[in-house]
Amino acid sequence: MVRWEAGTRERLQAAALDLYATRGFDDTTVADIAAAVGVTERTFFRHFADKREVLFGGTEAFQAGFLEGIENAPDGAEPIEIIRHAVLSASGFFAEERRPHSRLRQRVIVANPEIQERELLKMSALATVLASALRDRGTAEPSATLAAESGVLVFRLAFEQWLESDRSLAEIESDLFAQFGALAAK
Amino acid sequence: MVRWEAGTRERLQAAALDLYATRGFDDTTVADIAAAVGVTERTFFRHFADKREVLFGGTEAFQAGFLEGIENAPDGAEPIEIIRHAVLSASGFFAEERRPHSRLRQRVIVANPEIQERELLKMSALATVLASALRDRGTAEPSATLAAESGVLVFRLAFEQWLESDRSLAEIESDLFAQFGALAAK
Repeated sequence: MVRWEAGTRERLQAAALDLYATRGFDDTTVADIAAAVGVTERTFFRHFADKREVLFGGTEAFQAGFLEGIENAPDGAEPIEIIRHAVLSASGFFAEERRPHSRLRQRVIVANPEIQERELLKMSALATVLASALRDRGTAEPSATLAAESGVLVFRLAFEQWLESDRSLAEIESDLFAQFGALAAK
Repeated sequence: MVRWEAGTRERLQAAALDLYATRGFDDTTVADIAAAVGVTERTFFRHFADKREVLFGGTEAFQAGFLEGIENAPDGAEPIEIIRHAVLSASGFFAEERRPHSRLRQRVIVANPEIQERELLKMSALATVLASALRDRGTAEPSATLAAESGVLVFRLAFEQWLESDRSLAEIESDLFAQFGALAAK
């Protein structure tokens, strides 16, 4: 008997998002999610710590795109330029076909402060990871943290615009970096 | 019989912080906090929604300092300059004598992800309020949000440095704004 079916994790994530969007986060139980996928609650808890974490499964893959961009930035680049690389490199994670899913997820986040807080923690963790990668490349503090946080800021705002538009994420990010540079230099 | 004693709110806040720091957030109950102040749990819940909110009582006064700075910024100032005014104006909220309390509170926050998330939400709410105040003054989007978020970023980093140093918050903020401008302009 196959107990750890391939794809269970992804199916739990999809079912949870669907239930949160239709029934509401508060009115959905772990039992509901497990039942929708045809597994036990115990199986749910093998994959996720709680009802909220199921929406935050891909954090490592999400961070990896940014970190790759930092690695591939040219030698001698300024911190903000390295971070620009990181943010644009990660934009591949949010391809066109991901937009409907991201929109649904965003709707659930906006409707639930509890999930919103977790999303803020995810962004904060990203900034911490990027600042650390910048320091590893030789950027001193506070520049490393300022640049990393600026990159996460541009990413956040670009991502929100992306959800409401049909432009590519990379295009929006490039524009926002230009506006950010012009604004901060004043 | 005086049931709504003056200062109860402040005494609950002080007792809660003290208990969270010594006994730990998870191991402190609302009953413990109420008992430390000599009131009932019901009284606690008249003032605060839950155990976490008791650390987030002064949000309006906190935001007011920033908003005052936006109001008082000179006509025709650039968005980032208006935000600089806001951040420096709010530094008065964190006077020297507040540092020990702020240090204790920070220690409790860092030790508890649940409180950390709430602190991030407080900062996010501050950015939203400041962006709105900038728009009211005529700053267009995305400049209003970029400037507001940049201000909150500088404030956050300056505040962390302030907790670990003996310099004034305004001094640290001024330095960080200069570093931020130099970094972003590259």
